[in-house]
Amino acid sequence: MSIIVQKFGGTSVANPERIKAAANIAIKTFNQGHQVVLVVSAMSGETNKLIKLCDEMMPSPELREYDSIVSTGEQVTSGLMALSLINLGFKAKSYSGHQVKIETDGAHSKARILNIEDTNLKKDLNNGFIAVVAGFQGIDKKGNITTLGRGGSDTTAVALAAALKAEECQIYTDVDGIYTTDPRVVPEAKKLKSINFEEMLEMASLGSKVLQTRSVEFAGKYKVKLRVLSSFSPNNEGTEINFEEKKNMEDPIISGIAFNRDEAEVNILGVPDMPGIAYQILGPIAEANIDVDVIIQNLGQDGLTDFTFTVQKNDLKRTLKILNEKVKDHIKAREIKCDDEIAKLSIIGVGMKSHVGVASKMFRTLAEEGLNISTISTSEIKISVILEEKSLDKAVKALHKAFDLDKI
Amino acid sequence: MSIIVQKFGGTSVANPERIKAAANIAIKTFNQGHQVVLVVSAMSGETNKLIKLCDEMMPSPELREYDSIVSTGEQVTSGLMALSLINLGFKAKSYSGHQVKIETDGAHSKARILNIEDTNLKKDLNNGFIAVVAGFQGIDKKGNITTLGRGGSDTTAVALAAALKAEECQIYTDVDGIYTTDPRVVPEAKKLKSINFEEMLEMASLGSKVLQTRSVEFAGKYKVKLRVLSSFSPNNEGTEINFEEKKNMEDPIISGIAFNRDEAEVNILGVPDMPGIAYQILGPIAEANIDVDVIIQNLGQDGLTDFTFTVQKNDLKRTLKILNEKVKDHIKAREIKCDDEIAKLSIIGVGMKSHVGVASKMFRTLAEEGLNISTISTSEIKISVILEEKSLDKAVKALHKAFDLDKI
Repeated sequence: MSIIVQKFGGTSVANPERIKAAANIAIKTFNQGHQVVLVVSAMSGETNKLIKLCDEMMPSPELREYDSIVSTGEQVTSGLMALSLINLGFKAKSYSGHQVKIETDGAHSKARILNIEDTNLKKDLNNGFIAVVAGFQGIDKKGNITTLGRGGSDTTAVALAAALKAEECQIYTDVDGIYTTDPRVVPEAKKLKSINFEEMLEMASLGSKVLQTRSVEFAGKYKVKLRVLSSFSPNNEGTEINFEEKKNMEDPIISGIAFNRDEAEVNILGVPDMPGIAYQILGPIAEANIDVDVIIQNLGQDGLTDFTFTVQKNDLKRTLKILNEKVKDHIKAREIKCDDEIAKLSIIGVGMKSHVGVASKMFRTLAEEGLNISTISTSEIKISVILEEKSLDKAVKALHKAFDLDKI
Repeated sequence: MSIIVQKFGGTSVANPERIKAAANIAIKTFNQGHQVVLVVSAMSGETNKLIKLCDEMMPSPELREYDSIVSTGEQVTSGLMALSLINLGFKAKSYSGHQVKIETDGAHSKARILNIEDTNLKKDLNNGFIAVVAGFQGIDKKGNITTLGRGGSDTTAVALAAALKAEECQIYTDVDGIYTTDPRVVPEAKKLKSINFEEMLEMASLGSKVLQTRSVEFAGKYKVKLRVLSSFSPNNEGTEINFEEKKNMEDPIISGIAFNRDEAEVNILGVPDMPGIAYQILGPIAEANIDVDVIIQNLGQDGLTDFTFTVQKNDLKRTLKILNEKVKDHIKAREIKCDDEIAKLSIIGVGMKSHVGVASKMFRTLAEEGLNISTISTSEIKISVILEEKSLDKAVKALHKAFDLDKI
């Protein structure tokens, strides 16, 4: 009998009515002849309420206690979901992290799953139970409760699907799938029936908020087929994230356009073009725990080069302070500039691996719209550009049309 | 090094401020050179909120899930208390039922403690930690979370004190000790410095709400010295509940007067005086899960007798229905009467074992006040009477004075 893992996020279990709706989705799958494992988040708002209590007791709360407190949100939902299923006449049981058990390392608040003991779960599934697992949590070797960090319930679901060799891991959320781009910017944006795993990984890391990068990576590592669906429109099939290579001529070259308005660009001009210069610039930034995204170093001239990178907008001030105080004179740079009115735009598609001309089509389209781009970076399956923030919407619309994404 | 167990109830941990105040009480004890184990209830209101959620999912919720959900209240408080202690510079750790671990039977929502594995706890105490245990909960042999029922956190505290051979188990609550009687009725009521365990057991079972009967019984069984104190006036020494026999002539004969306005009296008149009659009357009542308190059968005359018992006022209607439908004709009783405007009053004291004349002094005092009593029942250390509810206050005041309780 095949196993389906279904994960319901915070908005999908926000109150007793939503929990009942989710229970009905699970029952439908169960009645189709599957064994069903549910993974649930805390009811929306609950985790923040618990975090606030922690902060009131101790600024920067000690993490062992923080984990033990915050994990109760998921434990409550798992019990309520089981009650709802039992109330509808089905056999159901909740499991906290230590009951499954989901063993993690001891890195509180960002633990990694080491092992899943699925004996209890499998026994109950074989006895006709629907299993409801509290997401986001585990237990370390010493019996301490741990949490998995942001998007942790997605990770729990994928890890369980891998351990149980599930047919599919379904992520229920408040959107009904993965779109070619954000429908708020391009009303013609189309929901994708399927997307390749590598494309999804780029979409997630480039700012599509539907799935956390980490859970997509995890699914890739263990070849778990994912599906993103809406718990608010249960008859919709959502978007499947699979591992198939695109083979047909008709398959679109580009699957989606992702963008991010949260970054700022920093330019260091007139830097001596010598080995180790990137580390001398970025080392102090990394030490301050500032994440750097795009990094570009142009070809040098007369022994000098320009160095560009992007950071989150709210890290810009700290970044400039570090560069001016610790880096500029040290590396003898001529000037430091910055721009926080930029946006990053990326087109993504495994199809571009085998299609020349994708980049030139992208640049021609943007040029025809009169849009200027400052920097470009590419990988095998994506091309990212940085442009003025005010040009972003126009650029996304033009590219969406140029690559026929409205015709998918 | 001696161990002190301190239990803080819901009002004593109602919010972050109260939790910090409780943490300071624990620290004071720790700094006096004791090892300290705290047992905490859920923040007041939290358990009811969780029960309401359960009821919304399923009328009469399935109890395994109910226990798992409701137990999270104590888990949250234990973590918050540990954070508060860490924030003040002390080593502290929270423990849920499965982390201690506290093993119970599988009777969900009213589980009994079978065993406490104290290895982890003792190791941490010896390493200088203050241990904070979530009250009210345990885990059964199969790993299911269980709860101990009403007053469960008191039971957890007493059980831990017994297992750890603690010097004392301190119950922090919102009253500052055990009084000779309710100060709302008798303003001259005095706080007792100490009370004998058997007296406390009578006080608890007769309606003094400070301690649950079950935790007092537990303390008696394992000879755990209890102390009741207020977390709101931390410099008060409260009331010690010990196992010492009273020896001095000066020790008061009577320690306290307890009363209960919640009961109603039922009289069955003209019952054939024959073996098995009590069971024929009370059997159907017990089957309906109605608790019976005082039971009196008067001496018979002409082969007939009168049978009296008391029940909770809100059970009276159901009781009369059962008696009229299932009992009256069957046992050929003449008449069934009831009175719900009564109160039960008890004087309690181990001293009365060796002092004749306590009962006669009680009855004389009530007679001098012109108060009529309907029924009397006695044990070695208490005398209970039933009288009109409107006479109760006058009776309590008169007896409090007659037995010199205002001079303790």
